[in-house]
Amino acid sequence: MASFDLTAPTVPEEVISLGTLVVDLLGVFAGSVLGALAAERRKMDLMGFLVLGLVSGVGGGIIRDTLLQAGPPLALVRPSYLVAALVGSFVAFLLDLRKGPGMRVLATLDAVTLGSFAVAGTQRTLEVGLHPGTALLMGVITAAGGGVVRDVLSRQTPALMRAVPGYYATAALAASAVCLALSQAGHPRLALGVGMVVA
Amino acid sequence: MASFDLTAPTVPEEVISLGTLVVDLLGVFAGSVLGALAAERRKMDLMGFLVLGLVSGVGGGIIRDTLLQAGPPLALVRPSYLVAALVGSFVAFLLDLRKGPGMRVLATLDAVTLGSFAVAGTQRTLEVGLHPGTALLMGVITAAGGGVVRDVLSRQTPALMRAVPGYYATAALAASAVCLALSQAGHPRLALGVGMVVA
Amino acid sequence: MASFDLTAPTVPEEVISLGTLVVDLLGVFAGSVLGALAAERRKMDLMGFLVLGLVSGVGGGIIRDTLLQAGPPLALVRPSYLVAALVGSFVAFLLDLRKGPGMRVLATLDAVTLGSFAVAGTQRTLEVGLHPGTALLMGVITAAGGGVVRDVLSRQTPALMRAVPGYYATAALAASAVCLALSQAGHPRLALGVGMVVA
Repeated sequence: MASFDLTAPTVPEEVISLGTLVVDLLGVFAGSVLGALAAERRKMDLMGFLVLGLVSGVGGGIIRDTLLQAGPPLALVRPSYLVAALVGSFVAFLLDLRKGPGMRVLATLDAVTLGSFAVAGTQRTLEVGLHPGTALLMGVITAAGGGVVRDVLSRQTPALMRAVPGYYATAALAASAVCLALSQAGHPRLALGVGMVVA
Repeated sequence: MASFDLTAPTVPEEVISLGTLVVDLLGVFAGSVLGALAAERRKMDLMGFLVLGLVSGVGGGIIRDTLLQAGPPLALVRPSYLVAALVGSFVAFLLDLRKGPGMRVLATLDAVTLGSFAVAGTQRTLEVGLHPGTALLMGVITAAGGGVVRDVLSRQTPALMRAVPGYYATAALAASAVCLALSQAGHPRLALGVGMVVA
Repeated sequence: MASFDLTAPTVPEEVISLGTLVVDLLGVFAGSVLGALAAERRKMDLMGFLVLGLVSGVGGGIIRDTLLQAGPPLALVRPSYLVAALVGSFVAFLLDLRKGPGMRVLATLDAVTLGSFAVAGTQRTLEVGLHPGTALLMGVITAAGGGVVRDVLSRQTPALMRAVPGYYATAALAASAVCLALSQAGHPRLALGVGMVVA
């Protein structure tokens, strides 16, 4: 990922990039499976699964890149993101994931990758040269934006704003904040790892 | 339209451009009339007709151009698009189109131009240098995006995701796929025509 | 604000810029307080107030800048906009503004700044080199766009399209039109003041 061009080359660039890509794709996959389950609750057909899965998986990153205006969204430039989201949507359509242990694995995966999304949003914003406070906001948008669009499309009050959980927004904000603190202190790579652990 | 700069000049460029523009404007007009009818069903005032008509007519193309980030949306650069959408909205407001034969003409026009929208989205994405798979997705977004925003604004579950028709998405996908196949084979102009016929 | 680089330097540039910024920030503040009250009506928690307040305060400008594609949105480049919107959201969360005279002050502030938003949208569009008709539309979008997103997120039919008031759209359109007329006549600064008064 171009995000790390500026960091000190202690670990080979390719390893970092590959690691980031794998985490990103896992996050997109988990997000799209969980998002597509909203289509199941609403008894939609395959098209509903695909739309909600795509939006949940890559929506946050697309909103981020559209707002930052530093080139077309990553998810449109790298087809692997779209593939991960489509595969996730199909999996949700084909398997009955709401029973069995799959949900717990997915929820864990989603929580871990939430931090990675928030960190990616924060770092990308700093790279473009914007204010750290803005980077914090963009971290939350990257992590939570796809879910908001999914909820709007399936006509629910966005979970982000509902009274009970607050989990998502708080975790994303925490991950962004930790990442920001470490980035400012000159340790962008460390920021990535710790941000993910916090979430 | 800049879309065809790269094609072999067997037909004068101006004729192609003019033809594309006419098809585009007919599509915007039909889309906005049909979109504004959602305002009639909801007993909205003129403002509701204008908003839903505009969004339905030019929304898909605006979403496409915003995502591709290759300059301001075509509908904002060329006022004729906005004029076509506004005229369509006014026509829906003034005439009682739901009775009589008007609806059938409009639906036909909409189906034909759907293909043209999907093709425009596909080709524009290829021009920007993105992956053919992405181009397929952008074709569907261009053709169906305006309708999704219209449905969200009028608080309906987007038709794109509802179980019954599927017509829209499938037709748009088919048009994009045919266009893509022919473009890849080196016949972008042929792609335009055939894409429209398929839809 | 870069908006006025091209005007005749009869008043020092800094004074104009500062005045514009103050009006803008007041508008963002008033918009976010009023927007966050939608969260109160829906009995949301703090997160709901912050999301609806942010969206109402800076949403219209962000939509404008995203569509015009002339760099990242002003609200992301200048953190003071985000701060004004967050402070407004907190104020709405902490104080019980629906009783007492606060509402009237806010409504007045909102009406005055509505014109300033419409004018900012109109002038920014002209600067980018787009058609005056497009500028008119962008003025309305800048002034009313945040409210539409707020209404969609809180699952209401957007006020912009509801039958009764029409106030917002009409006032924004009037402000944009006056600003446009004066800008075309070569008096962009005058346009700003008069546009605000009209609204």
